[in-house]
Amino acid sequence: MNKKLLLIKRPIDFPTEDTWAFTEERMPELEEGQLLIRQHLVSLDPAMRGWINASRSYIEAVELGDVMRAGTVGEVVKAVNHPKFKEGDMLSGWGGVQQFTLTDGEGFYKINTELANPKVHMSTLGMPGMTAYFGILEVGKIKSGETVVVSGAAGAVGALVGQIAKIKGCRVIGISGGEEKCHYLKEDLGFDEAINYKLGNLRKDLKKACPEGIDVYFDNVGGNTLDTVLTRINKHARIVICGAISQYNKKVIEGPSNYLSLLVNRAKMEGMVVFDYAKRYPQAVLQLAQWMKEDKLKSREDIYVGIENFYETFCRLFTGEKMGKLILDIK
Amino acid sequence: MNKKLLLIKRPIDFPTEDTWAFTEERMPELEEGQLLIRQHLVSLDPAMRGWINASRSYIEAVELGDVMRAGTVGEVVKAVNHPKFKEGDMLSGWGGVQQFTLTDGEGFYKINTELANPKVHMSTLGMPGMTAYFGILEVGKIKSGETVVVSGAAGAVGALVGQIAKIKGCRVIGISGGEEKCHYLKEDLGFDEAINYKLGNLRKDLKKACPEGIDVYFDNVGGNTLDTVLTRINKHARIVICGAISQYNKKVIEGPSNYLSLLVNRAKMEGMVVFDYAKRYPQAVLQLAQWMKEDKLKSREDIYVGIENFYETFCRLFTGEKMGKLILDIK
Repeated sequence: MNKKLLLIKRPIDFPTEDTWAFTEERMPELEEGQLLIRQHLVSLDPAMRGWINASRSYIEAVELGDVMRAGTVGEVVKAVNHPKFKEGDMLSGWGGVQQFTLTDGEGFYKINTELANPKVHMSTLGMPGMTAYFGILEVGKIKSGETVVVSGAAGAVGALVGQIAKIKGCRVIGISGGEEKCHYLKEDLGFDEAINYKLGNLRKDLKKACPEGIDVYFDNVGGNTLDTVLTRINKHARIVICGAISQYNKKVIEGPSNYLSLLVNRAKMEGMVVFDYAKRYPQAVLQLAQWMKEDKLKSREDIYVGIENFYETFCRLFTGEKMGKLILDIK
Repeated sequence: MNKKLLLIKRPIDFPTEDTWAFTEERMPELEEGQLLIRQHLVSLDPAMRGWINASRSYIEAVELGDVMRAGTVGEVVKAVNHPKFKEGDMLSGWGGVQQFTLTDGEGFYKINTELANPKVHMSTLGMPGMTAYFGILEVGKIKSGETVVVSGAAGAVGALVGQIAKIKGCRVIGISGGEEKCHYLKEDLGFDEAINYKLGNLRKDLKKACPEGIDVYFDNVGGNTLDTVLTRINKHARIVICGAISQYNKKVIEGPSNYLSLLVNRAKMEGMVVFDYAKRYPQAVLQLAQWMKEDKLKSREDIYVGIENFYETFCRLFTGEKMGKLILDIK
């Protein structure tokens, strides 16, 4: 039997538990060239909130009645003459929130478990790692000595963005919610400064932490944080728009009212979608793994257990009650 | 006697007439190396609204009690052993809203009256021309075949942006206020389409005029226009932030609530200030003059007469009751 989570409702603001429903079904027999993957890990990502809206964004919406889309890592438990994969292979891909995935293997790739364990392949060597790597290097175009600010800094992407910027010789300031997270950023990850935005002094704290202004801002949150950062940017600053978690559950998005700071400072704000860099993932994976091996980069995952706890875990993306990459262990 | 206009008040929203006051004073004797310029033309620009705010933006604020900053063209009527300029030279520079400017010549340059008449040197071959040229080519990075949208399209900068984009082989859509302006854009300037935003159907009209989406948007107005354009941009679109005339008199700027379209479309929004290209002005002036000579580019100025009519003329910048470059002839 395969337990799976279906999208059954389109939420307007914050998704309630009845947005999804579990169902169980018997797995059909495998046909020639098919695989059965027993999923171990399900990735929880802020982007999920966008995927369940009716409108297409950078990817098709999840249809009502379909299995909820999610990145997964799991083991091939059955393979019928598959050209690429065999039983025992650990595959990463879009397996969805379900125990078993039946597939022809399209879009899945084998992870190297000698390089790192599966949960690291879902965080630092997975989508969050790719997003941080290409976002801060290719869009942010950071240079040694620059001041880099990242929001959602204790999150899966943010923590990597900050660490990569440190490796590249930047001064790094993280914006995060809570003292524990700020402590983690400064003490464990080596950020130069960490600002707890929940104290409500973002403008003042940012001024203090960035006396020479901000050259690059990597934005995961949008809203008031983006707007406040805009008041402190330097000439020719780059703002990487990666996400806007503060806005995903709002009916009306709050636009950055200080956007004319882009004009005054000849600065730019640019959006990114990690898929555009797919051809270069392997090179980035090797580089990130190398930095981990050299102890320059720390990977952190926050693991919750049980597919039945999907909703509770999903909510942590928005309440901020998590640290690092949020993963559901459903094995 | 020199009649001059002083800034005496900082407006909060739309400047009232008593924001400025005229005064007359006797000109002092010229010292060694000084010039006296009798101003002929005073440039009226939307940027003036920003200069009279207390805060510095890309340029220092005009101080209370100082002559109102303005671009000028005038004739040297007296020169005391000046190393660069002599009597009879026509000089362009920041002469301010006054009949005579006493200066050491710093920041002034001699215009070539054989290339074009003084008013063209204040429009197509002046700041608006430089802004349009570098903005659409260097920031917008237009390519032949792309769809280019420009707002404030019948204004000094907008009309040139659209014409340059046409010269470069783009499909050009102008957004403007009123049927007369739209007629001018299509019939006189050769824009492919012109949208009268005052009809209130911008979203629908934009969809119709840009069936293949928008590759480059040159924004002079901000507000609802920018926000609506964001819903129609293509992948890798470039948005040039040149101005936001719809917002300059507001206490709270309206940020673009659709800015996440930048993320979805991997697009960028970049600000520009023309001064950054100062070293390359001469090359741009020659190119623009050449296009005028070849009848590929039309220059249009809207001239009002009399320094005492400054305020009434200034208001036209915001009411839109003008076409092309707004100039006050004070000779």
